[in-house]
Amino acid sequence: MVKLIALYKKPSDPAEFDKHFYEIHLPLVQSVPGISRVDVTRITGAPFGEARFYLMEELVFESQRVMDTAMSSAQGKSIARDVMSFAANLVVLLQGVPGDSPASPDPNHLPEF
Amino acid sequence: MVKLIALYKKPSDPAEFDKHFYEIHLPLVQSVPGISRVDVTRITGAPFGEARFYLMEELVFESQRVMDTAMSSAQGKSIARDVMSFAANLVVLLQGVPGDSPASPDPNHLPEF
Repeated sequence: MVKLIALYKKPSDPAEFDKHFYEIHLPLVQSVPGISRVDVTRITGAPFGEARFYLMEELVFESQRVMDTAMSSAQGKSIARDVMSFAANLVVLLQGVPGDSPASPDPNHLPEF
Repeated sequence: MVKLIALYKKPSDPAEFDKHFYEIHLPLVQSVPGISRVDVTRITGAPFGEARFYLMEELVFESQRVMDTAMSSAQGKSIARDVMSFAANLVVLLQGVPGDSPASPDPNHLPEF
């Protein structure tokens, strides 16, 4: 399982951002071939100080190969264009994999959880 | 469902960070009363440029009340102390809720996804 994570900073007009995000962006993402799941998390605050981000979006794929194929498809390219059109200055993009155990565990000393 | 999200920037010594994270920090988190799940995502890169973060940790609770109780317990406080001991300058903390539909949807015009 691999994830493409988009962290969006607070937009100057949250209502306009939300409208574009839910009405245009999310349906585009959900149409990408091979996508397993899209998780959206609205940031409601931070334990200390002000929250650094407004919204997190996670595109989940079965494998790196499936993600690469999806993101280089016509739909994948239209998502990239869409993000640049409404959130170029807001978005931080990351790729990740589940990491419940260390990156290179010693097979003789696997953590016990 | 609510989440406490910790985004860690790249540590100067990843091996030392990982050792503390998996051997000390994660068992502490998993011992917090009322926690539903801990998801760890290792950041492997970014679609453009360098990845802004190294690791993402998500503590999932059933409700805000359960999270607040957990984080103000003795175990919750020891997690906060632990994070400050090994990642004070690396961590960005956020709270969030699932946001697959807009924050204040008009019940007569729910999005169709």
